[in-house]
Formats: sequence, C-alpha cells, structure tokens
Amino acid sequence: MNVIYPGSFDPVTNGHLDLIKRCSEKFDKVIIGVLNNIAKKSVFSIEERIDLIERSTENLHNVEINSFSGLLIDFAKEIECPNIVRGLRAVSDFEYEMQLALANKKLYPDLETLFMVSNTEYSFLSSSIVKELAKFDGDVNGLVPKEVKFALIKKKKAGDL
Amino acid sequence: MNVIYPGSFDPVTNGHLDLIKRCSEKFDKVIIGVLNNIAKKSVFSIEERIDLIERSTENLHNVEINSFSGLLIDFAKEIECPNIVRGLRAVSDFEYEMQLALANKKLYPDLETLFMVSNTEYSFLSSSIVKELAKFDGDVNGLVPKEVKFALIKKKKAGDL
Amino acid sequence: MNVIYPGSFDPVTNGHLDLIKRCSEKFDKVIIGVLNNIAKKSVFSIEERIDLIERSTENLHNVEINSFSGLLIDFAKEIECPNIVRGLRAVSDFEYEMQLALANKKLYPDLETLFMVSNTEYSFLSSSIVKELAKFDGDVNGLVPKEVKFALIKKKKAGDL
Amino acid sequence: MNVIYPGSFDPVTNGHLDLIKRCSEKFDKVIIGVLNNIAKKSVFSIEERIDLIERSTENLHNVEINSFSGLLIDFAKEIECPNIVRGLRAVSDFEYEMQLALANKKLYPDLETLFMVSNTEYSFLSSSIVKELAKFDGDVNGLVPKEVKFALIKKKKAGDL
Amino acid sequence: MNVIYPGSFDPVTNGHLDLIKRCSEKFDKVIIGVLNNIAKKSVFSIEERIDLIERSTENLHNVEINSFSGLLIDFAKEIECPNIVRGLRAVSDFEYEMQLALANKKLYPDLETLFMVSNTEYSFLSSSIVKELAKFDGDVNGLVPKEVKFALIKKKKAGDL
Amino acid sequence: MNVIYPGSFDPVTNGHLDLIKRCSEKFDKVIIGVLNNIAKKSVFSIEERIDLIERSTENLHNVEINSFSGLLIDFAKEIECPNIVRGLRAVSDFEYEMQLALANKKLYPDLETLFMVSNTEYSFLSSSIVKELAKFDGDVNGLVPKEVKFALIKKKKAGDL
Repeated sequence: MNVIYPGSFDPVTNGHLDLIKRCSEKFDKVIIGVLNNIAKKSVFSIEERIDLIERSTENLHNVEINSFSGLLIDFAKEIECPNIVRGLRAVSDFEYEMQLALANKKLYPDLETLFMVSNTEYSFLSSSIVKELAKFDGDVNGLVPKEVKFALIKKKKAGDL
Repeated sequence: MNVIYPGSFDPVTNGHLDLIKRCSEKFDKVIIGVLNNIAKKSVFSIEERIDLIERSTENLHNVEINSFSGLLIDFAKEIECPNIVRGLRAVSDFEYEMQLALANKKLYPDLETLFMVSNTEYSFLSSSIVKELAKFDGDVNGLVPKEVKFALIKKKKAGDL
Repeated sequence: MNVIYPGSFDPVTNGHLDLIKRCSEKFDKVIIGVLNNIAKKSVFSIEERIDLIERSTENLHNVEINSFSGLLIDFAKEIECPNIVRGLRAVSDFEYEMQLALANKKLYPDLETLFMVSNTEYSFLSSSIVKELAKFDGDVNGLVPKEVKFALIKKKKAGDL
Repeated sequence: MNVIYPGSFDPVTNGHLDLIKRCSEKFDKVIIGVLNNIAKKSVFSIEERIDLIERSTENLHNVEINSFSGLLIDFAKEIECPNIVRGLRAVSDFEYEMQLALANKKLYPDLETLFMVSNTEYSFLSSSIVKELAKFDGDVNGLVPKEVKFALIKKKKAGDL
Repeated sequence: MNVIYPGSFDPVTNGHLDLIKRCSEKFDKVIIGVLNNIAKKSVFSIEERIDLIERSTENLHNVEINSFSGLLIDFAKEIECPNIVRGLRAVSDFEYEMQLALANKKLYPDLETLFMVSNTEYSFLSSSIVKELAKFDGDVNGLVPKEVKFALIKKKKAGDL
Repeated sequence: MNVIYPGSFDPVTNGHLDLIKRCSEKFDKVIIGVLNNIAKKSVFSIEERIDLIERSTENLHNVEINSFSGLLIDFAKEIECPNIVRGLRAVSDFEYEMQLALANKKLYPDLETLFMVSNTEYSFLSSSIVKELAKFDGDVNGLVPKEVKFALIKKKKAGDL
C-alpha cells in the first residue's frame, strides 16, 4: 500500500519527519506531496522546500518527493495513489481535516484519508512557530533538522523571514 | 414568525439552499440577508449574489432577499425582525456562532438566534471550497445549483477566481 | 409555530426557565415534554417535576406541560409537533445534541431541532450541580426558583438526595 | 499490511460495516477484534456478536473475526499485528481516541493507530442508539443489516433490551 | 500565595506529581485536597491514597496533604485558601473544568481557579488508565511512582482491581 | 509571585480589565506586557494602547505596564518573571493557548502559564468585536471603559477604523 503525505513543508519540521519515518516503516512507499500554492507566499521556494526534505530523509529508502499545484485529489488521481496520510496534533486540526477528508471522498470515492496522531513531543510544533522563533533568533534546536536550522538562519540574515 | 437567514453567499451553495427550504417550511417568512461587506473582496458582486439566490429559490413563495451592510443587529432592527437563523456544520462553527449570538443578544436583547444543524450530506460544504474547486476545474455538480455552476465557469474563464 | 422543549427537569432550574420564557415570547405555544425514564432513577417523581414546572411558569400563558416515556420522536408525532427546541451551554453539549438532532431527522424527516444559546449567566448551571449543592447544604439561591429550593431542602431532610 | 479493527460490536451497525468494507479494499487483511469485556454487561453474548458480524461480512474475503479480553495492545502483540484502525464520527470521539492512541503507543512503540472518518450518512449512528430505538420499537432499517434487525426484535420480545 | 490542588488521586500518578512539583516551585504552599467521596467506590481507601501521596512527595517541603468531603468551596473556605489549581490535558477536560470554575466563582466570588497545562509526556495519563493497565498486568513503569506500582500489584493479587 | 499578562490590547476591553483586577488581588505584581508587533497593523499606536491601559488601571497599585516586541519568552527572561497569565473565554481559545504554553515551556522550562476563566459576562468580548461595533456606530457602553469609548469615537471620525 502506497500513501501520499501532502503539505506545504515551509519548512519541514521534526514533527513532519517523525510522521514520515513512521509511515515509511508501515507502508510500501511514502510519496511526499509538496504543495506549490502560487496564491500564498512561502518563505522557502518550492525547490528549497523539496531540497530540505530530501536532505532530511535520505536515510529512508521508500520515500519519494513530488510537488503538485491545484487540487490534492487531482494529484492523487494522476499518480494513481488513492491513499492520503495526515498528522493530527489537536482537536482544531481534526475538525478542519475531517471536513477536507469528507469533501475529498465525495469528489473521489476511492480516496481514503488515514489520520495518525502526532508524537506528543511535537504536539505544539508547526512550520509557523518555527519561522516565528527564527525571526527573533529563538532556539530551534530539537524542532527542525540541522539543514533546516541553517537555512532559517540564512533567510533571517537576508531579511526574508 | 419571520426569520432572517444572513450570510455572504459568495456564491450560494446547496447547503444554504437546503436550510432555506427547511426554514421556508417552518416559518412564515424567510428573509435572506446578503451581507455587502465593502472591506472584504468577493468573487461575485452583491447584484450577482442576489440574482443567483433569486433564481435558485424561485419555487419558494415565502422567501424574500435583501442586502445589508454594517451590523446585522441594525439590519434586524430596521426590518423589525428579531429572529436569526444560522446553520451549523461542525463544532468549530458553533463556537464562533455562539459568541456572535451572545454579543448580538447583549446589544439587542429581543434578538434570538436559532441554530439548525446542516444536513450531513453538506457537512463539508462551503462557498470557499466550491470556489477552490471551480478554480482548478473540479466537479461542482451536486454542490451548487446549475445557475451557480455556470456562473462559476464564467468567472473562471474571465480569470476572476 | 409550536415547539416542544424536552428534558428530565429533575428539577427545573433558572437556566431552563430562562429558555422557556424566551421561547414563550417567540413561539405560539411551548410544550414542555418531561421525560419519564423508567430505567433511570430521578430524585423527584414525574408528578413532582411537573408540579414544580407548573408553579414556576404560571405567569406564562402559552406554556403546556406534558410527560412522555419512550422516544422523543414518537412523542412529537403523537402530539403532531415536529419542532424541538434545545438549549446549548457549551461545545460538549453541542456535539451530543447535534448527533441526536441528526438521528431524529433521519427517523422523522419533518422534524427540526432549533438550538438556542443559554444565557451566559447560566452557562455552568445544570440539575446535577443543583442537586450536588443542595446535598451539602450549599446555597442555591439564584440558581432555581423558590419552589424548587424548598423542595430540595425537603428532599435533603428526608435523606433522598 | 494487516489491520485490527477493535470494538464491542453490541451489535454491529451499518457504520461499522461501511468501515470494514473500506478497510478490506485497502489493506491485505482486516482482523475484527471483538472485545469480551467481562466487567460490562452487553445485550448480545460474545458468540452472538461474532455470529452477527460473520453473517454481515461473508461477502468480504479478507476479513477475519477474533474475540479478545484484556488489553488491546496484548491482543495486538499476540497476533503480531501492530496496526489498529478506528473510525471517527465527531470531535468528542477523537479526543478520547487520541489519548488512547498515545497511551497505546507509549506502551507498545511499534503500534500505530490509523483513524478513518465515518461516512457522514452514519455520523450519528452508534450501537447504543440502535438499542435505544429497538427498545421502543423504533425503525432500525438502514441503520443495521437485516440479521441484526431480527436479532434485536428477538431480544426485545425476550425482554432483554 | 497558597493553592489547593484537589482530586481523587485513586491512585496518584506521575502526571499529578509533575504538577505538584511545578506548583511547589511557584507557590508558597501547595495543599493537596484528597476528595473522600462516600458515594463513589474507590480502589484505594482515603488513608491509602494519602499515604501514597505522602511517600511520593516527601522531598517537597511546602506540600501539605488534607482530605475533604462535600463541596470543594466549603473546604476552601474552611482552610481560608481561595485559590485552586487544576491540570488540563485536553479540550474535553477543559470544558468541564471551565463550567466547574464558573460555578465555584458564582458561589464563592473570591475563589480563583488557575489552570496549568499538563506536560505532554503525561497527556494521555489518568488514574483510570493506570488501574486498567494494572488489572491486566500491563506495564505501569514511568506512569506512577514505585510505591504506587507495588500498591497496585497488591490490589491486583487481592482481586480488588 | 509576579505575573505577566501579555496581549495586543488594541484596545483594552472590560474583559481584560476584569482579569487584571482579579490578578492584582491575587498576585504581588501584575506586569501588563503590550505586544508591539511591527508586522501587524493596529488601530491604536503602542503609545495610545499603553496610555489607555494606564488610565483604566490607575486605581490598581500593583500593576505595571511595559511594551515588548519579539518573543514573549525573551521578554519574560529579560524582566525575570517566568509566570504568565492568560484569560480563556472558550474552547477554541484554549487549544491555541495550550499549544503556545507547551511551546513556551519547551523553550524556557521554568516558565509556567496560568489560565484563568473569563467572567461569563465577557465571554463574547474581544478587541475585534469592539472595533467592528465602533466602526458602525454601535453601542460599546459596558464593553470598554469610558476612555476607550471616546478614543474609538475619535478614530472613527478620523476614518481610522
């Protein structure tokens, strides 16, 4: 069974990586789908985001990284993988995700969304909090992999956070 | 008993229409209040939104359509209808709506807000999801009436989604 | 438009009475449906509960009090009143009530459940909290009408709380 | 990938069966784990519950039915299947399930719990509601398979509901 | 500033102890109020529960242990400490606790309830889960202090779980 | 024990002031930390916001007002006050606040966040609702102190709402 793990990953965090690792142990292949949303500004370009995920997952041999734009269900149809994995940290996550899962299933009945609970250690962690911290020179050790930490410092120096 | 059913309706969906129909069976008159919010950009103009609701509700004989700007309580006072109906799809809807209902009651003690549960079939449906789908040529059949579907296709062709 | 306001009312509280009063101002008739649940022990008998509601609502001229056992939808069909009113105090109330409303609508499609938000003053109030307080001689003034206060003191003296 | 779908199934409903079917299409094997909880009274005996599931799933060829008592993690270890599937209907479900999933993962780190969203059609459905309906001769068509309907009628006649 | 940390503590867990330690570092005195609820059966007697807390907190010098029955507000008045601390693990905890805090403040206006968030490590932990685990010889290391572990094994051997 | 009560206070409301008063009765000193967020437009300048708080709290003798920019934990370290107080109005508040509290504790382990429940009278009140009301000449009496009311009228006249 193959699964898609979709997201913006702007940038990838240790919370994302924990889920990717757990998926790679359970499923045949994990396809990371990086959303290239032209309407929304991101700190890292799509190439940078993919590069950071690649460098953080190179020890996992059944992980594949793709970008997509438009609707997730169209991406899922295109790569013929009707299985989506989403991490849940909290109730407010869940409600939005549940509506999305129902909408996607209505539009693409074969599609299933599998939710996995985030490790409690990362239950407060998000890409936004990481960028907020980096912006004010806060400590991001333990929250992101080293590659991402250095990339954040660079962005901060360049005034791009 | 008359009720106001307020909203942006940008555009009206089958979820809205299900509620309007259920209200028209229970109450003497249903006054649809279309919010003309100058501060927030909408895809459809106030005239277009009213026109689409009119064409989708022409078989309901106790439905009236009005636009308003400013505060809902001022609109309710003006038309002397201190009863508001709101649809609820999920818990997160509810909490915001509950705060609004309490604020409105504090400012206008005669006002009552009556909540009705959305049909489960439409529990994931919103104007935003419909616009997102139409933007990427997704299928909106069953989510909006035909008039709205064609209007969305036109907006998409004109590059306005 | 007539509505049913169902509940156990063991005993009726000022929170219930606030809702009954607000309903009596909006709807043609308010039918209070007191659930006679044989499987669940109550502190007050069905006769006592009806009597306390009667004495607390005697100034409201469009309120009727009935008891019922079994399913609420069967009671609603029997008295030909397919409209139910429920008060909501909090999110946890809402979720259970939403499931109930959906179940009832599935079984009796004409039925509508209208939710009204409890006055914030009573947002913590329930029959259980009132009984717990009375059991330990706590002060219930402002939480229940005088009749209920005296009835609680009697029950406490008789060792029935 | 094999999964366990655990529960009390007292009795199995169409909501459960929808999830079992969806799992059987996605996973190699679905092991239904029927909890034999000695401390809690059930309407149907463990044999009856298994029999009703068997008869409702006989057209699904990769479904296996087992009973277990004690802890779910011990059952999962014993049958060497560290993957659990749970259906979610609502936010209140989710929060309890999330705590359970975290507790189970702490005690058995290989274990993953995969959550799937219930079909909206069944979002109000539970074994308790079904039993409550049957107790008062309510209509359970569409909520449970025929076998279960007849079994409920029998229990009702025998005074066991 | 002194605070009361109330609960049943049947038995005390590492989640409780984490909160007690954090309170003892912040406040002048922490008064642990062990509820002696005659109406509810507990596995450990009030004396056993107090003894287990005493042995688990003997290195904290500003912690005092008391039992109380009846209403928490009466206990707070009696010991003249109008400050209560409660731990929160999840949203469902919060809502019930919020209603309780509001009820208590209504009845005793000087009373304040301070909520502290449980350490994520213990976000799934409760006395009930610990007893459930011990009942089936599950591993409770890391969830309770050693004294409690041994006490649970004894109860299990005596058939009292 | 000293506490920080952080926020944007754009402008301060009676809900904020109720909490400040309750804190000033319980704690040795209340340090109001006004966030100067350069990235987010505010209606009132940082000087105006501080001035309005000062004039509304001049009868409270243990209240100090400071502004800060950047991370709250850096402000807390700088003024050596590792105690934060936050008001909670509703469940949705709570979930975001809980994640923030956990993130802050991870980055600054001595830090504790104490949550206090807002008075039900103010459970719907926020700076945004107050500005929305003032924008449409709605009545803000009872929602903000007189100083703030006049300041809002001035902003409205100047076209700055």
